[in-house]
Amino acid sequence: MAIKKNALVGIIMGSDSDLKVMEAAAEILKKFEVAFELTIVSAHRTPMRMVDYAASAHSKGLKVIIAGAGGAAHLPGMVASITTLPVIGVPIKSSNSIDGWDSVLSILQMPNGVPVATVALNAAKNAGILAVEILATADAALTQKLVDFKNEMKEEVERKAEKIEK
Amino acid sequence: MAIKKNALVGIIMGSDSDLKVMEAAAEILKKFEVAFELTIVSAHRTPMRMVDYAASAHSKGLKVIIAGAGGAAHLPGMVASITTLPVIGVPIKSSNSIDGWDSVLSILQMPNGVPVATVALNAAKNAGILAVEILATADAALTQKLVDFKNEMKEEVERKAEKIEK
Amino acid sequence: MAIKKNALVGIIMGSDSDLKVMEAAAEILKKFEVAFELTIVSAHRTPMRMVDYAASAHSKGLKVIIAGAGGAAHLPGMVASITTLPVIGVPIKSSNSIDGWDSVLSILQMPNGVPVATVALNAAKNAGILAVEILATADAALTQKLVDFKNEMKEEVERKAEKIEK
Amino acid sequence: MAIKKNALVGIIMGSDSDLKVMEAAAEILKKFEVAFELTIVSAHRTPMRMVDYAASAHSKGLKVIIAGAGGAAHLPGMVASITTLPVIGVPIKSSNSIDGWDSVLSILQMPNGVPVATVALNAAKNAGILAVEILATADAALTQKLVDFKNEMKEEVERKAEKIEK
Amino acid sequence: MAIKKNALVGIIMGSDSDLKVMEAAAEILKKFEVAFELTIVSAHRTPMRMVDYAASAHSKGLKVIIAGAGGAAHLPGMVASITTLPVIGVPIKSSNSIDGWDSVLSILQMPNGVPVATVALNAAKNAGILAVEILATADAALTQKLVDFKNEMKEEVERKAEKIEK
Amino acid sequence: MAIKKNALVGIIMGSDSDLKVMEAAAEILKKFEVAFELTIVSAHRTPMRMVDYAASAHSKGLKVIIAGAGGAAHLPGMVASITTLPVIGVPIKSSNSIDGWDSVLSILQMPNGVPVATVALNAAKNAGILAVEILATADAALTQKLVDFKNEMKEEVERKAEKIEK
Amino acid sequence: MAIKKNALVGIIMGSDSDLKVMEAAAEILKKFEVAFELTIVSAHRTPMRMVDYAASAHSKGLKVIIAGAGGAAHLPGMVASITTLPVIGVPIKSSNSIDGWDSVLSILQMPNGVPVATVALNAAKNAGILAVEILATADAALTQKLVDFKNEMKEEVERKAEKIEK
Amino acid sequence: MAIKKNALVGIIMGSDSDLKVMEAAAEILKKFEVAFELTIVSAHRTPMRMVDYAASAHSKGLKVIIAGAGGAAHLPGMVASITTLPVIGVPIKSSNSIDGWDSVLSILQMPNGVPVATVALNAAKNAGILAVEILATADAALTQKLVDFKNEMKEEVERKAEKIEK
Repeated sequence: MAIKKNALVGIIMGSDSDLKVMEAAAEILKKFEVAFELTIVSAHRTPMRMVDYAASAHSKGLKVIIAGAGGAAHLPGMVASITTLPVIGVPIKSSNSIDGWDSVLSILQMPNGVPVATVALNAAKNAGILAVEILATADAALTQKLVDFKNEMKEEVERKAEKIEK
Repeated sequence: MAIKKNALVGIIMGSDSDLKVMEAAAEILKKFEVAFELTIVSAHRTPMRMVDYAASAHSKGLKVIIAGAGGAAHLPGMVASITTLPVIGVPIKSSNSIDGWDSVLSILQMPNGVPVATVALNAAKNAGILAVEILATADAALTQKLVDFKNEMKEEVERKAEKIEK
Repeated sequence: MAIKKNALVGIIMGSDSDLKVMEAAAEILKKFEVAFELTIVSAHRTPMRMVDYAASAHSKGLKVIIAGAGGAAHLPGMVASITTLPVIGVPIKSSNSIDGWDSVLSILQMPNGVPVATVALNAAKNAGILAVEILATADAALTQKLVDFKNEMKEEVERKAEKIEK
Repeated sequence: MAIKKNALVGIIMGSDSDLKVMEAAAEILKKFEVAFELTIVSAHRTPMRMVDYAASAHSKGLKVIIAGAGGAAHLPGMVASITTLPVIGVPIKSSNSIDGWDSVLSILQMPNGVPVATVALNAAKNAGILAVEILATADAALTQKLVDFKNEMKEEVERKAEKIEK
Repeated sequence: MAIKKNALVGIIMGSDSDLKVMEAAAEILKKFEVAFELTIVSAHRTPMRMVDYAASAHSKGLKVIIAGAGGAAHLPGMVASITTLPVIGVPIKSSNSIDGWDSVLSILQMPNGVPVATVALNAAKNAGILAVEILATADAALTQKLVDFKNEMKEEVERKAEKIEK
Repeated sequence: MAIKKNALVGIIMGSDSDLKVMEAAAEILKKFEVAFELTIVSAHRTPMRMVDYAASAHSKGLKVIIAGAGGAAHLPGMVASITTLPVIGVPIKSSNSIDGWDSVLSILQMPNGVPVATVALNAAKNAGILAVEILATADAALTQKLVDFKNEMKEEVERKAEKIEK
Repeated sequence: MAIKKNALVGIIMGSDSDLKVMEAAAEILKKFEVAFELTIVSAHRTPMRMVDYAASAHSKGLKVIIAGAGGAAHLPGMVASITTLPVIGVPIKSSNSIDGWDSVLSILQMPNGVPVATVALNAAKNAGILAVEILATADAALTQKLVDFKNEMKEEVERKAEKIEK
Repeated sequence: MAIKKNALVGIIMGSDSDLKVMEAAAEILKKFEVAFELTIVSAHRTPMRMVDYAASAHSKGLKVIIAGAGGAAHLPGMVASITTLPVIGVPIKSSNSIDGWDSVLSILQMPNGVPVATVALNAAKNAGILAVEILATADAALTQKLVDFKNEMKEEVERKAEKIEK
């Protein structure tokens, strides 16, 4: 199931229909030149694949896992129950979700002992940035890239502000 | 982990603090003289115990599983992902729950393919009755007991109505 | 009102506009070769038809009832108040529903004594699977079909995962 | 089941535990000298009693029915499905309710064809006043009493305002 | 502002954009041959018009008022604060409403002393039926029409059921 | 009804039970030495008193109105419909409120044309500060007091921080 | 960053995608001939620009700030934490918002000490009117324009009512 | 403001009343022997202190920031807007919060570009564990401690299960 050698971040999702949301995480990791792998792992339809993925993640060399799911979203929390790696959860407003509330609550409200770092509904891009921030705690070059990224965002706002002010 | 020989119903819960809610399921099974076992299985703190419980439930002779959990409640759905037995989920308004909404949504909103028979918030008694109804589909004596149970409820209302009308 | 001889499962719904959701239950029962009947029973517009349906379900030979309704959805709970059969409730996000919340809460939150096995919003497919799981508690052939069904789901995820990993 | 001769208003509730809320409706009817009867009718535990109550209400001489219930509250809507009398629904924040939301939605969100005149959560007093307003549409003396009642409320506010202004 | 002589029901709404919802109330009153008037009264943009409408409603001969509004919907409650007539409130899911929740809560949750008979979101048809039920408490011919109406609904369900069963 | 000569701010509330929340607005105005009056005006029980209060507020010399109410809270919006003064609305979590949601939505969600400056649930203190900020737009001395107030808050945090850091 | 000389109202928003909502505030200020400036200030992407804007607003001559933002909307509250000017917050139902609930709650629910005058979801027009009302507390000509504005609204309703009544 | 030399984690909160929740984060860091500092930083009452804290966090040697706040909780998001360190947000059900919903949404729903790693309501303990997991991505000894911690949790469940089974 290992896709890319030297991947530091594993991006998983419960269904291929989640890909259109989750690829934003992949794009941000590409931008920051962080190696990642991406696959489908369904907590409910492939529970043992989920157990295997989570149990082997650390020894494969992964540092962070990004897991996206919708509805009664158990993937991020179950992976977090098995691995000691930080797990970032992306609640997805999937077609079976009640406006996203189920996705958010079933990822966010983990019991004491097993945290999931939850980001906003559908915010796979932010999941990617958070993964970079985590890796940057031990990688000064990545920190510099994050500084540059913040500057880019600032300059884009300033450009748009100038345009709107005219 | 097997507690009682010949148990037909397995009652599990995520934490011992859930016992005060879940024992209502045990009581109703006792009333209907249905053999059951009861234990703690935490999806998040004992994921492999959860896998083992679910994977062996059918071969142990269980017919129905009642699983109670609160907050980001993954126990009922994860057990249902592994076993082919009907799983009844009891959302518990635990101390870490946001008024029960997280418990309800993370048990109820299962994706297509893996149902959980969800009952009302904290309604472990109803979970027990539902387990009896399921077993009664192949047990005429249990069906008769359910008819009697409905009569008892009716008569209790009538008694109270008479009292209040006076 | 009886439609099919030897039906084990009765699928009812409050309105013909619910059919596009509820036929997923019929399809899954066909797939599992479980005989069923399907009709419209409105708790609010045909209350006595509802009473008759529920009161005669057991003697007609039905083992499980699947009832779908939206808004202030009283059909599943009222049928459950009359029959001793397990009743599976499908909350439907109908046109008069407030994003499905009314449908979910008025089916799920049954008082103690009268359970409804509630599935996710619009999840008629899961209602069908749950009905099969219930019948399988006394039918080893059905259990095997459920095992096969779980395998199919697993293999479909694995195929999609392979595709996405490339 | 008839309690009081010449009762114009029937007050029913799903459980004796609802009495502490519902007696406010009785008190307001006493204040307006409107004859009423009061009893327990559970849609879920005594469905046939509910059918009988609703079916005979008009011929017994009742003009208005006030029905209170909590959780998946089916009593007001089911009674309204059977009788042509106006039915006033009182959502009750009972012990099994999720902060009253289930009670409100399962009474309010009735489908087209079968209205329930819903009042605020626990607002049995307002249910009583609404019953009086309905009867007053054909009773000028009651209308005058309602005018007086509005004046009393106004004067009470003015008295309290004077006190607070000092 | 009086539109129709001998009107028994006044239908008012906060904005002409509410008309597409509220005309269902007019249609049902036409069907039952109940005379009504219909106009726009905005609590917020024409507060004195609202006061005048409510204060004169009884003396004009109206028996029931149906008031529809959306968002922070104050029209039904304010009219009810002034008149002793029964006021039926229709929460409208208008363009400025948060999915209808504001409309529902600001009409339903009236304080003790001033009830509004609230119907479901956008359920102007039910408001019309409720008005008929109220008038029927003193009009046996209207009661008979309501009996017929219930029969029509029942027969329509039965026809659709027959069709779907084939 | 005028209480204090030269009052610049009028504090009104729907019921004397709201006083325990609303007096925080009075206290902050005292602290800033802004003259105010305080009384009870119920939109629902004293609608004409409400009209009079709002209609005369400007000519009495008031500059800002603070209005607190709970449940279906119509007071702030109705006063704003009549006066051109800025109206600050305080949603109150009163005993008849559904956890404050009704209070918040029925004050906040005003239609275009008639704004209410809404503050947080029960935040009468913030209503008082906002009134001061509004008056300070034409009063440099008040602005200086607001600068001092912000400094006090900052220093209090710093003192507490020092204590906690030890 | 100052755009217009003599601006009394500053309109800011978190993103250029908010402009389509926020320009309604600009339009109402133009109608009332109140000078304003309008630009983009993102609390999250340009935090120091936000600090600068808020810190210099008073000395630049601004009297009121209107700030619109969506999702976890921090702009209005953070600006209010720095300036003593009244800040009007416009919750925007942006593409990343959960039906507007996050926008509303993260602007409205400010802690004691730092109010934000919150208007309805997307109600930038009302924010503009509220700004005028605030300025009118010290400007009799503006008050007169507000009286005229209320008359215009009233007359528009009356015209539409006449049309609908025919 | 620096409290402890060599602190790797900074724990901040908006108010000293949050300490009773947030000290659970400190306790877990002590258990894992991770150096931390803890202080009060209010986004709303001390905005410049917040800016300074966030701007200097990286150069002071902090690797992770844990920020807790309630109501319109801006602290975690604003700190994340300034620093490149991973920020863990703890939504607190403070006295001014609407059942925690405002706290959760105003921390979780950050716009793209600025993530906050949000944990469950009041789950400061999980925030501490997540901080350890993040540091463990570059610290094998910490990873081992996390493995041990997971074992402890498992064994505690097993002990309780044994007890309950008897």
